[in-house]
Amino acid sequence: MERLDEKSPIALYIQLRNILIDKIKSGQWKVNDKIPTERELCDMYNVSRATVRLALQELERDGYIYRKQGRGTFVAPPKIEQNITHFYSFSEEMKKRGLVPSSKILGFEVIKSDKKLADILNLKEGDEVLSLKRLRLANGEPIMLETSYLPYNMCRDMTREDVEKMSLYEALRTKCGIIPNSADETFEPVLTNSYEAEVLNYEAGKPALLLERITYSFGTPIEYNKGIVRGDRCKYRVSLK
Amino acid sequence: MERLDEKSPIALYIQLRNILIDKIKSGQWKVNDKIPTERELCDMYNVSRATVRLALQELERDGYIYRKQGRGTFVAPPKIEQNITHFYSFSEEMKKRGLVPSSKILGFEVIKSDKKLADILNLKEGDEVLSLKRLRLANGEPIMLETSYLPYNMCRDMTREDVEKMSLYEALRTKCGIIPNSADETFEPVLTNSYEAEVLNYEAGKPALLLERITYSFGTPIEYNKGIVRGDRCKYRVSLK
Repeated sequence: MERLDEKSPIALYIQLRNILIDKIKSGQWKVNDKIPTERELCDMYNVSRATVRLALQELERDGYIYRKQGRGTFVAPPKIEQNITHFYSFSEEMKKRGLVPSSKILGFEVIKSDKKLADILNLKEGDEVLSLKRLRLANGEPIMLETSYLPYNMCRDMTREDVEKMSLYEALRTKCGIIPNSADETFEPVLTNSYEAEVLNYEAGKPALLLERITYSFGTPIEYNKGIVRGDRCKYRVSLK
Repeated sequence: MERLDEKSPIALYIQLRNILIDKIKSGQWKVNDKIPTERELCDMYNVSRATVRLALQELERDGYIYRKQGRGTFVAPPKIEQNITHFYSFSEEMKKRGLVPSSKILGFEVIKSDKKLADILNLKEGDEVLSLKRLRLANGEPIMLETSYLPYNMCRDMTREDVEKMSLYEALRTKCGIIPNSADETFEPVLTNSYEAEVLNYEAGKPALLLERITYSFGTPIEYNKGIVRGDRCKYRVSLK
C-alpha cells in the first residue's frame, strides 16, 4: 500500500488522486470495477473524508470514475477521442479506434423548412427538406444523437434503406452523385434534456457537446447537422500548427 | 403582431421560436433586454403555456436568451466564436472579433511537478514547474479560467511582470528564446464547480468546456494548459476540408 506524505509540498488530495489514477492506468482497477467507498479510502490512506472527497471529485471531473446513485463509484471506460483536424465521419473515426460503429434510424421524413433551415441550406421557407434522425453507437453503446437536414430536391433518390446500409455521405455520393468535401462545425457545451438523456442512456442535466455542422459540396450547402454527444464518453482533439 | 398558423405543418412552438429569433436578430429586442413573461407571450400569440415553454427552452438551449432567478428572461449577447483551425491564442482571437482581451493573474508560483505533469512535460516527478493561473476576460467580462504549467528550468528569466505586460507566448519568445509552434488540444464538456463559477461570475453546475492543451516548440513539450471556458459565452469553430 502506497502511503501519503504529509510533509510533501504536493497537497494530500493530489497525492491520493495520483495513487488512484495509477491503480486505474496500471489495470489493478479495471473498467467498470467498483472502487472502495469514501469511508474505506479514508481508512486505507489514513486521511480525512474531505481529502478523499476532493480526490474523487478530481477523478470524476477528469472522467476516470463515474458514480451510480445508490450503487457506488466505478472505474470509467476511457473517453473515445475523435480527431477533428480533417473532414471526418463518425463511422470512420470509430473504426480507426477499433470500435464498431452502428446507427439506429429514429426518423426519416420529408418536412417543410422553417426560416432558419431555409437560410442555412439556401432554400425558400417552406421548401422540402429531408430530416434524418439517427442514434449513433460505438460497440452498441449510444454516443451521439444527430439530425441531418438535406434539401430534398437534391436527395430524392436516397432511401431509408440506403442510409441503413451505408454512411450518409456514401449514400449521397453513390445515390445522388453529390460529393461532400468540406464543412464548418461549431462546438459548444450544453446540458442534456430529458429526451436526449433517455435516448442516449445518460442522465438529464449531464454535460454534453452540441455540434452543429454545415456540410458543403464544392461550396454549396448540402447538409445542416445538429448532434448531441455524451460528454462522459467523448472528447475531441485538434492538432494546431 | 405576427400570428401563428395552426394549419401549418410547422409545429406551433417552432413558429413561435422563429418569430422570437427574428425579434432578436432584427434588433427589435436588444442584448440584455428583458423579454415578456411566459404569461404575456401566451396572450400575445394566443398559444398555450406548454407551447411558450417549449419555444423558450429552444431559445435558451441555442443561447439566444438567459434566465435570471426571480428577475426574468433576457436577450443573451451572441456567443464569442473562436476559430481553432490554426494555432491560436486567446488574445489574438478576441482582437480579431473586435473585443478587448485582458488577463488577471491569480497565481504565479514555482511548484514541484506531480507524476501526471512530469509525464506530460518530459520531466522527473518533483522537478520544478512554473504554475501560472490566469482569468481571461473579453471587454472586462470573465470568459476563461486557465492554468499554464511550464518547465521552470526553461523559463527562469520570465517574470510575473512579463506576463502582465504581454502574452505568455510572446514572453516565452522574447524572454526565454522559446518559440511555441504547435499544440495538441482536447475539448470536452464539463459542469463548473463552485470555485470556477465564482471566479467566472457564472453559476456552479452550468455547462463549460474543459480545454487541455500541450504546446510544443519544435516537438519539445513546453506547456501543459488546462482551461475552463464559460459555455454561455463561447463556442468553437473548425473548418474541415
